[in-house]
Amino acid sequence: MKHIPYRIHLSENEIPRQWYNVRADMKEQHAPYINPATMKPAEPQDLLPVFSQEVCMQEMNITDRFIDIPDEIMEYYKMYRPSPLCRAYNLEKALGTPARIYYKFEGNNTSGSHKLNTAAAQAYYAKKQGMKSLTTETGAGQWGTALAMACAHFDLDLTVFMVKISFEQKPYRKAVIETFGADIIPSPSNTTEIGRKMLADDPDSTGSLGTAISEAIELAVKSKDCRYTLGSVLNHVLLHQSVIGLESKLAMEKIDEYPDIVIGCAGGGSNMGGLMGAFMSDKLLGKKNPYFIAVEPSSCPTMTRGKYTYDFCDTGRITPLAEMYTLGCDFKPSAIHAGGLRYHGMSPTLSKLYHDGYLDEARAVGQKSVFEAATLFSKTETILPAPESSHAIRAAIDEALKCKETGEAKTILFGLSGTGYFDMSAYMQYQKDEMVDYIPTDEDLARSISKLPKVPGYVEK
Amino acid sequence: MKHIPYRIHLSENEIPRQWYNVRADMKEQHAPYINPATMKPAEPQDLLPVFSQEVCMQEMNITDRFIDIPDEIMEYYKMYRPSPLCRAYNLEKALGTPARIYYKFEGNNTSGSHKLNTAAAQAYYAKKQGMKSLTTETGAGQWGTALAMACAHFDLDLTVFMVKISFEQKPYRKAVIETFGADIIPSPSNTTEIGRKMLADDPDSTGSLGTAISEAIELAVKSKDCRYTLGSVLNHVLLHQSVIGLESKLAMEKIDEYPDIVIGCAGGGSNMGGLMGAFMSDKLLGKKNPYFIAVEPSSCPTMTRGKYTYDFCDTGRITPLAEMYTLGCDFKPSAIHAGGLRYHGMSPTLSKLYHDGYLDEARAVGQKSVFEAATLFSKTETILPAPESSHAIRAAIDEALKCKETGEAKTILFGLSGTGYFDMSAYMQYQKDEMVDYIPTDEDLARSISKLPKVPGYVEK
Repeated sequence: MKHIPYRIHLSENEIPRQWYNVRADMKEQHAPYINPATMKPAEPQDLLPVFSQEVCMQEMNITDRFIDIPDEIMEYYKMYRPSPLCRAYNLEKALGTPARIYYKFEGNNTSGSHKLNTAAAQAYYAKKQGMKSLTTETGAGQWGTALAMACAHFDLDLTVFMVKISFEQKPYRKAVIETFGADIIPSPSNTTEIGRKMLADDPDSTGSLGTAISEAIELAVKSKDCRYTLGSVLNHVLLHQSVIGLESKLAMEKIDEYPDIVIGCAGGGSNMGGLMGAFMSDKLLGKKNPYFIAVEPSSCPTMTRGKYTYDFCDTGRITPLAEMYTLGCDFKPSAIHAGGLRYHGMSPTLSKLYHDGYLDEARAVGQKSVFEAATLFSKTETILPAPESSHAIRAAIDEALKCKETGEAKTILFGLSGTGYFDMSAYMQYQKDEMVDYIPTDEDLARSISKLPKVPGYVEK
Repeated sequence: MKHIPYRIHLSENEIPRQWYNVRADMKEQHAPYINPATMKPAEPQDLLPVFSQEVCMQEMNITDRFIDIPDEIMEYYKMYRPSPLCRAYNLEKALGTPARIYYKFEGNNTSGSHKLNTAAAQAYYAKKQGMKSLTTETGAGQWGTALAMACAHFDLDLTVFMVKISFEQKPYRKAVIETFGADIIPSPSNTTEIGRKMLADDPDSTGSLGTAISEAIELAVKSKDCRYTLGSVLNHVLLHQSVIGLESKLAMEKIDEYPDIVIGCAGGGSNMGGLMGAFMSDKLLGKKNPYFIAVEPSSCPTMTRGKYTYDFCDTGRITPLAEMYTLGCDFKPSAIHAGGLRYHGMSPTLSKLYHDGYLDEARAVGQKSVFEAATLFSKTETILPAPESSHAIRAAIDEALKCKETGEAKTILFGLSGTGYFDMSAYMQYQKDEMVDYIPTDEDLARSISKLPKVPGYVEK
């Protein structure tokens, strides 16, 4: 086998020039989005007041396997891509495993995560359509930062609704987002009807991603020059994130490697979906059979304990309904530190792939074991990982330890989707041994799931 | 001319295998260090209780142009090096300049700066000598983080004295350093004699880099298994940092470029010294004539308003005396946000090169103009720069604007030594227009300079 460097950097001309659309290779699709006003399948025009036009078309596209990346977005990607594929030699050594561990590191930009891949695309398409401003929500702050960066580049105004608990825990996220010229508002807020209603019901609400989504959409649809953007969950986001997997696959080819196991954390699903896309293609086409593991927090166990059915994408119940794994849009996730994974639902495409057995395994892990993994990773690999990404690290370590037992030299690839520079209060809590694992009871889940909307004629699978 | 990518990544086997020792090419050296106990030139054995043996030898080495980098350090470098050389296309566009602007980005590791290059070397040499632990000080926290990372890798205990004002302003730096397993103590502290004396004189002292150095040395020399490490100023540090310039030069050769202007921020001098080394070699040997600019804060104007003479390296007056530019070791820099540049002295080698006219220009800039530059850079280049590095950005922008006036297409290279993720309170202050520029009066400087130590027989140049 060739010598494998610690860091494998592709060259600029190896950045993919097309996104990969996994849906074109899927034999079956998730059921159509449902317009909650009519309870009929949503038409493209239902989405047009919310999202920019090109994004709506991409959302519905199930035929084109590859979609060209516009030059303007390519130019933006070139500032921070290709991202490195890293061989975790020192982590392997610390574990004493025969496994070869690789990670694709997407945190090497100021947003601190992979989110910039779709932020650049969504900002570009909105600008091209003549929009003046965008709205969005952010949980942990990485998506808000990424979109603020993209809006600064494409000259768009931006309003970010940040989940109040994160807003308070992470004052510096606000500062970063403002440095890029965006406005940031803690959610629930008094600036929208939905926000005012939430505050009237519960003045001390710490907010949720679902509520922030509702507020951002409400603000966007009020103006004809403004559109809403979402950083995860939807098909067009997974499409844009496919660059992660395409680059990973190309880099691995250069060192004659192919992953036996592909691991990503999954909140809304964009990181996992983006990382696994190019490899999932091989599986769907019968070329290869990698084993996929999506890792979620045990406090918000959407795939491992949720239901596969229709639900709203937001708490305010104003979005279309999507067929997906969900804990119910009324589910209130505990205040864990991986804010980016506190979401009641899951990408409909990822959900479908899991439901149909192509995504092999969903695994829930507690945050204490996650920070244990994060700390070991920091010490061995010189990168301080985000709490979200550290869920994938936990699973990668566990798989590598299984290899140690069996003696198998498996090739493990995981997504290191971001850095943890703005999560130090979480690390501090872990160091002081004050961190708690939250696990919802069966009753908690049954309660929120019982409030799921009913779609006439839909038969659960 | 070839197409120049946004980011130029060398391959792993292009990491330099030797450090470059600029002193071997200098016609004259700075005057020898003076042992303050004897007021005679310091002998290697004077330094041996303080620094590890190999480091002492490197400190005195004026003959070897190149020094091999041990394999163990090379293996560590491979986790985060080579660092990218970046073409600032979007900054150029925003400025409308014909200049071509490049920056060497050293912030792509968890320490957030170039400091890891010497941290790895110093930790390795101490371990090789059988040491059990290290001590150091840190101002902004980047050096403390880097050394904590290196000590985790080479299995050494570490005590970091952090300047109290930074310790309080940056609680998350503490968390990062502790994540890597090091102890961190705000300075002045009760754990050393010098610290106790400082606190007795001024219980509300916010500390200084000079005091923290004194405390760290005191703790190190008390134990035979412990050594002190310094993150800047000294010759061996500049030696280790020479990888920055060597990589920069090689990357520029690949795109047929050579800098007309080389710009770095200068606090203790390690970033500037490391970046310029390989290019300074060309100048010293008469091969090329790049123009060098060292940028310092107007609040701590060591080279622009200091005196070239002997001074202590620390506030506690326990280190050897070095011939250098200094504001006097009693000078108390204002609490600007570029904590890494708040140092009364300057690398003796850098000082000598400046004094003899090889380092062409020292320039002092105020922090408001620095943060203006940092904000423009963030918006255009997708990287949030450290306040220290932003001093170099300020000067690079000013040089590029001069090119715009004259129409000259100069090639500008600057060192982007670090990221600003832990400096968001500074960015917030700037955004609120609450930032103040501090400029010491002539009387302030005359007062601290009047207290400089006198070395018998030394004639000021």
